[in-house]
Amino acid sequence: MALLVQKFGGTSVGSIERIEAVAERVIKARQQGHQIVVVVSAMAGETNRLLGLAKQVDEVPTRRELDVLLSTGEQVTIALLAMALNKRGFNATSLTADQVTIRTDNAFNNASIIQVETENLTTLLDQGNIVVVAGFQGRDSENNITTLGRGGSDTTAVAIAGALDADECQIFTDVDGVYTTDPRLVPEARRLDVVHFDDMTSMARNGAKVLQLQSVEYAQQHRVPLRVLSSFEEGEGTLVSFDSSAVSDIVGIAIKNQQTLLETDMPLSDLQAQLNLFGITGWCSVVNAGSTQFVTANDDLARLKLVLDKKMHQVAAVSTLSVVGDDMSGKADVICAELAEAGVLVRQNKRSSRCLTLLINEEDHQLAVNIVHKRFVVEPESLDNRPLLAVS
Amino acid sequence: MALLVQKFGGTSVGSIERIEAVAERVIKARQQGHQIVVVVSAMAGETNRLLGLAKQVDEVPTRRELDVLLSTGEQVTIALLAMALNKRGFNATSLTADQVTIRTDNAFNNASIIQVETENLTTLLDQGNIVVVAGFQGRDSENNITTLGRGGSDTTAVAIAGALDADECQIFTDVDGVYTTDPRLVPEARRLDVVHFDDMTSMARNGAKVLQLQSVEYAQQHRVPLRVLSSFEEGEGTLVSFDSSAVSDIVGIAIKNQQTLLETDMPLSDLQAQLNLFGITGWCSVVNAGSTQFVTANDDLARLKLVLDKKMHQVAAVSTLSVVGDDMSGKADVICAELAEAGVLVRQNKRSSRCLTLLINEEDHQLAVNIVHKRFVVEPESLDNRPLLAVS
Repeated sequence: MALLVQKFGGTSVGSIERIEAVAERVIKARQQGHQIVVVVSAMAGETNRLLGLAKQVDEVPTRRELDVLLSTGEQVTIALLAMALNKRGFNATSLTADQVTIRTDNAFNNASIIQVETENLTTLLDQGNIVVVAGFQGRDSENNITTLGRGGSDTTAVAIAGALDADECQIFTDVDGVYTTDPRLVPEARRLDVVHFDDMTSMARNGAKVLQLQSVEYAQQHRVPLRVLSSFEEGEGTLVSFDSSAVSDIVGIAIKNQQTLLETDMPLSDLQAQLNLFGITGWCSVVNAGSTQFVTANDDLARLKLVLDKKMHQVAAVSTLSVVGDDMSGKADVICAELAEAGVLVRQNKRSSRCLTLLINEEDHQLAVNIVHKRFVVEPESLDNRPLLAVS
Repeated sequence: MALLVQKFGGTSVGSIERIEAVAERVIKARQQGHQIVVVVSAMAGETNRLLGLAKQVDEVPTRRELDVLLSTGEQVTIALLAMALNKRGFNATSLTADQVTIRTDNAFNNASIIQVETENLTTLLDQGNIVVVAGFQGRDSENNITTLGRGGSDTTAVAIAGALDADECQIFTDVDGVYTTDPRLVPEARRLDVVHFDDMTSMARNGAKVLQLQSVEYAQQHRVPLRVLSSFEEGEGTLVSFDSSAVSDIVGIAIKNQQTLLETDMPLSDLQAQLNLFGITGWCSVVNAGSTQFVTANDDLARLKLVLDKKMHQVAAVSTLSVVGDDMSGKADVICAELAEAGVLVRQNKRSSRCLTLLINEEDHQLAVNIVHKRFVVEPESLDNRPLLAVS
C-alpha cells in the first residue's frame, strides 16, 4: 500500500464527464490498495469566467478580493469530484485550503506555501476516505484567502505530498509524460521513462511546459518523487527521480517562444540595474562598443517600455532552444554550423555544464528544433562522428 | 452613528450592474456616518446553476458536498461587492462564514445558526471598513461547510445583527416594504410603515413571502429591529418593531396557495400520529363520522402518498386567506356571508385572537382576497356597521 497524491488540472476536470472519468481513475488506484489524496484545479474556463466578472467591476481589482473570488473555482471542483466518488460507493471528503490547513505568505494572487498541516488529511485517510483537496489556494497567517497564481495546483499537490511524506506525487495532464521535445512540433519526439530532477528543472526553466518550474523546484527541495501521467490514457508516464541512474546523456530540447531581442545604447551595467529594479529578467550581452542586446519575454515588453522609453529598439521576434544533456561544449559549433547550412541564423549561444541554449529567430523555431532534435536525440552518434564543417 | 446590518438578496445582486447599484446604496448609508455590515446572497440564478451541476453528477448528491458546492455562490458575490466598494474609495473587506466565524449545527443543507463570533467583525468595523459577509452559510463544530437552506441569507443578517447588538437589520428586497396583502393580486394593497413582530410572524407563517418566517422568529428572539426596504427605490420601507404602538387594528391578509384538501376514513388521532411521524404539518378536522379532512402543502403530497397510500383522496386544490388583526371573532360570519354572496365557498374557518383563516378553493383566491381586503383594510368601518345577512 502506497500513499499517493494525484493532481488533475483544469482540462482533466473541464466537464462533468471529465470529472466522472477522473473519479474512475482515482478509484482504480484506490482499488489497488493505495491511500489517495486528490488535488484538483478549477474546471477549464472557470478561472477566466471569474476574472471576467472581476474586470467588469474594476480593471485592477483589489488583490485580496480577487483571491476570494478565484478560490471558488477549485471549491466547485472538489465538491463535484467528491460527489462522483461517493456515488460510486467510495467514501470521499473534500477539503478547502483552510480545512486542510494550507498556510501561505500574504502575497495575494501569487502566494507561496509555508506549511501544510497534516492532521486532518491523516485522520480522513486513516478512516478510509479518499481526500479531495482544492489546489491553487491557501490562507495567510491572518486567515485571508490567498491564491498561488496560475498553475499553483501542481505546487499544492507537491506540498501536500511533501508534508505527508507521500510515496509519489502524480501530475495528471493532457500529455502522457515528459517528451524529448514538443511532439506537436517534432513528430519524432519520444516520451522519457525517467528524468533526473536537475534536468527536469533545466527543461522547465527553459520553456518545457509539462511541469511548472516552481513545483519541480519545490518537489526537489522536499524530496518528493514526481510522475507525469495522462488523464486520458493508460500508461506509466514519466518519473522525475532523484536517482543518479536517471541522469541520461541527452534529455531533450526545451523551446521558449514569444521573446523579443532588443538593442539599446545604454551601458550593460546600467541596463542590468534597471532590469533588476523592475524585476525583469533578460539575457544580456554587449554586441559592440556602446550597444547592448538583450532578450526578454514578450509579457515584459510593456513594462520595459516604461523603464527604457525611447532608449531601445526591437531587433527581432526570437525563440530559444535549450538542449539539456551531457557534454555540450564540443557540440555547439557542429550544430550551429548545420543550422546555418539549413538557413537558420543562430544569433547567440550560451553553454553551461548540462545545457546549450541557442538564440534564433522565432520564425525558424520549428525547422531548427527538428534539426537539433534529429542530431541530438534521434541520431546522437552522428553528432560525435561528424566532422566540423568549414565555416568562414 | 448607528450600526446597521444590510442584507441584499439574489435579485438585488443579480448582475454586475446590480452589484454596483448595491455598492452605491451601501455607500450612501456609510456617508451618513453609519457602520455597515452587508450580507449578500448568491447572484440570482447561480444557486440553480450549481445545483444543476450537482444533479448531473448524482440525482441525490452527498449532502455535505452539496454545501461545499453551493456556498461558493455567496463567496463570488462578497468578492465582487467588496471590489466595487473599494473601487469607489471605500475600504471594504469580505468575510466568508468561517472567517466571521458563523457556527451552525451539522444539518447539511438546512443548518441552524448556533453562534456568531463578533471579534473579526468588530475589529474590521472599528478600522473603518465596510464588512461584506457571505449569507446562507456556516461551519459546524468540526469545521465542515454548512448551508442554512434557501432564504438563509436573511437569517445570517439577523444573526449578525443580534450578535453585534446592531441598531437595525435592513432587508433589501424587490418590494418596498410589507404590504397589507399581495399587491400583484390587490391593486389597493398599501405599504405598512410599521408592523409589530407578533403580527409579522403571523403574516409570515400564513404565507406572506416578503420575510422568511425563520428569520422573523430569530429576530424577535434576539430583539433585533427589522426593516424591509426596496433595493431598487428610495423609501423608508416597513419597520418590524417590538413597540406596542406598532400593534394596529388590522395588519393585512396573508395568502397561501398550492395546498390540497384531502379526505381520509382514518380516525383523526391515527392521522395526526402518522403526520407527526413523517414531519408533515396539516390542518385537520373531522367532517362527519368516519371521515377526516385535512389540508397540506402540495410539496408534501408525494410524501403523504407514501404514508396514506390508497386511504386518502384529493378533494380540491385550496388556498388559505389569513386576516391578521384585532377582534376577529365578531367579523368571521359577516365576511363568510359576503364571500358566499359573491360565489366563493368558504370551506372552513379557524379563529385565534389576532388571526382569522379562511379555507377556499384555489381558483377563488384572487376574487376572495379582493373582497376581504376591501372589507377589512380599505373600509373596515363598513364591517362594524353592516348587519348580519340572513344565511340559512
